[in-house]
Amino acid sequence: MKFNKNLEKIKTYEAGKPIELVVREFGIDLKDIVKLASNENPYGCSFKVQDSVSKIVSKMALYPDDSMMKLKDALGKRFEVQTDNIIIGSGSDQVIEFIMHSKANSSSKILVNSVTFAMYEIYARYVGAEVIKTSSIKHNLDEFYKLYKEENPEIIFLCTPNNPTGDAIDSMDIYEFLSRIDNETLVVIDGAYMEYAIYKDKSKKIEPKELISKFDNVIYLGTFSKAYGLGGMRVGYGISNSLIIKELYKLRPPFNITTLSLEASSVALEDEEFIDNCIKLNFKEMKRYEEFAKDKEINIIDSYTNFVTLLLNDNQDSSYISDELLKKGMIVRNLSSYGMNAIRVTVGTKEQNSKFFKLISRLI
Amino acid sequence: MKFNKNLEKIKTYEAGKPIELVVREFGIDLKDIVKLASNENPYGCSFKVQDSVSKIVSKMALYPDDSMMKLKDALGKRFEVQTDNIIIGSGSDQVIEFIMHSKANSSSKILVNSVTFAMYEIYARYVGAEVIKTSSIKHNLDEFYKLYKEENPEIIFLCTPNNPTGDAIDSMDIYEFLSRIDNETLVVIDGAYMEYAIYKDKSKKIEPKELISKFDNVIYLGTFSKAYGLGGMRVGYGISNSLIIKELYKLRPPFNITTLSLEASSVALEDEEFIDNCIKLNFKEMKRYEEFAKDKEINIIDSYTNFVTLLLNDNQDSSYISDELLKKGMIVRNLSSYGMNAIRVTVGTKEQNSKFFKLISRLI
Repeated sequence: MKFNKNLEKIKTYEAGKPIELVVREFGIDLKDIVKLASNENPYGCSFKVQDSVSKIVSKMALYPDDSMMKLKDALGKRFEVQTDNIIIGSGSDQVIEFIMHSKANSSSKILVNSVTFAMYEIYARYVGAEVIKTSSIKHNLDEFYKLYKEENPEIIFLCTPNNPTGDAIDSMDIYEFLSRIDNETLVVIDGAYMEYAIYKDKSKKIEPKELISKFDNVIYLGTFSKAYGLGGMRVGYGISNSLIIKELYKLRPPFNITTLSLEASSVALEDEEFIDNCIKLNFKEMKRYEEFAKDKEINIIDSYTNFVTLLLNDNQDSSYISDELLKKGMIVRNLSSYGMNAIRVTVGTKEQNSKFFKLISRLI
Repeated sequence: MKFNKNLEKIKTYEAGKPIELVVREFGIDLKDIVKLASNENPYGCSFKVQDSVSKIVSKMALYPDDSMMKLKDALGKRFEVQTDNIIIGSGSDQVIEFIMHSKANSSSKILVNSVTFAMYEIYARYVGAEVIKTSSIKHNLDEFYKLYKEENPEIIFLCTPNNPTGDAIDSMDIYEFLSRIDNETLVVIDGAYMEYAIYKDKSKKIEPKELISKFDNVIYLGTFSKAYGLGGMRVGYGISNSLIIKELYKLRPPFNITTLSLEASSVALEDEEFIDNCIKLNFKEMKRYEEFAKDKEINIIDSYTNFVTLLLNDNQDSSYISDELLKKGMIVRNLSSYGMNAIRVTVGTKEQNSKFFKLISRLI
């Protein structure tokens, strides 16, 4: 049977290895596995969220409220925007998918950073669009501008803080960059890890409200999968002017968020104390990674997120090291598929991080 | 800002009105609202499922197992197929989306029944494909074959039992039809309500195992949203030969099912007793609809599902009646948008159905 030609070019997303597979493949006991590969919140999610979800399990039979009123009201309040400025996706991934299908096609180009979130490229291939990449590992907005002028892309993706590197762009630089982009080019600001960046350095803070009041061609993306500790519930959002949201809405399938996910994310927004504590602990633990790297003479990228990218030395091989760690039940992300001899490690709990330091010390 | 041209033609899915909106619009107390509009299981979902989901709410922070091992193993066992014959979607809707994006494009045609599940047409418009429809309200396979020969569609959708009409096709007729279709045309058998049909009449039963062993160009769709009582959790599946599944997999976004949805659907397959009881009760209550219709001299379509379609008489207007019912807190589906003077009513619990009979009796 023949299928559409663009399927031939699609590569699939390489996710962090699920714990279930490590149990099966290596026969390691579930309790001995530590997963620091997917930037999940190691402190889990708020007890308030757990309680409120437990209370409505009898509602699993009912289709979700497709107006998503409760969640949109909560997000609108949180970001001081109207509900028609908001679209909800099954993870911010799905909002990226809507963006791609609404603006790009097989004659389009999209512009992304050399090393960045893999789903931009994957969704671009779904529609057959050409992906233009910068050369610099950190976002270099001068290079972005140069390529923008040369290539005239339909969509530009800025990921700040960037995944999988952890660095972030100054908000002033983003505003200055946006002021030079024409109105027909859509600029996506992916702030999946923004909650962490804001805590560390206010100059990295992007306010969706300010962003969309200043520019008509920009969409901000956020997620409940990272700081909010709901990676398993698949809820992300886009904030933009209402005209863009209206177009993206045409591509949203009905009931794209589960009944329990709507409850979990709405309630998560009410428990700011939990998030604040998690973020504080994250940066306290990150100091240990910085000290460890210094001690072992490994370079790390200054991180505004809940993960650390270790740039290994030439005599250290990221594939070998991550494979050996895996055999001991320690799952991290090997960045060799990004062309980097590096590993990305989620900053875990104190105990998880101690175990990581202990295991990797034997390998480097 | 300009968007892709095919967005202009997209119409959005008209879902059953969510209870939350009725509360807000009409100020009706939540406990007085009865929703018989979305063919949810009125008996909810199994207590075993509720228990097992409650027990893992602390895992909401973890990304779902993207291999979906547990659910695929359970489905494989249930249908006696291999796990590589199975793809999981966020509702069977999403599997329809994968099918459309893999096989169809702006130069394709798809063939569907005149009145059928609206998402086939909506997803066809996403890719710009032309939708060819039969004229008969019930699936007429001779007409399907005639249009197939004339129009050469990429995909044919057979929905059995059909939504929103409730009738079902004999499996022998489907096999005979399939034997006359060339191997390049993909035939989708949507069995969202199949569990109900099998109980009522074995001659309607489609066995995915038998289907895919006989034909290489067919995919069977099933869902947990109806009989299994998990409409809010968004889990559906496709069963086909491994080559087709492999192509569809290229379009599956990672983590398309939540952690709690995977648990709920896997456990739901273990509690057959619950499903059997729900289906028995469904047909017991359906008898009351049949008697009611006979009494009121309204035609109904013989239903193999958990809903009944009342074909109203000329002096009865489906829009007026469903609006009036709504004001009393009774939500049903008006089929006027399908060009029918009819309402579709989910067969609810005994109390819900009694309330429906009481309220509609004042209007007809």
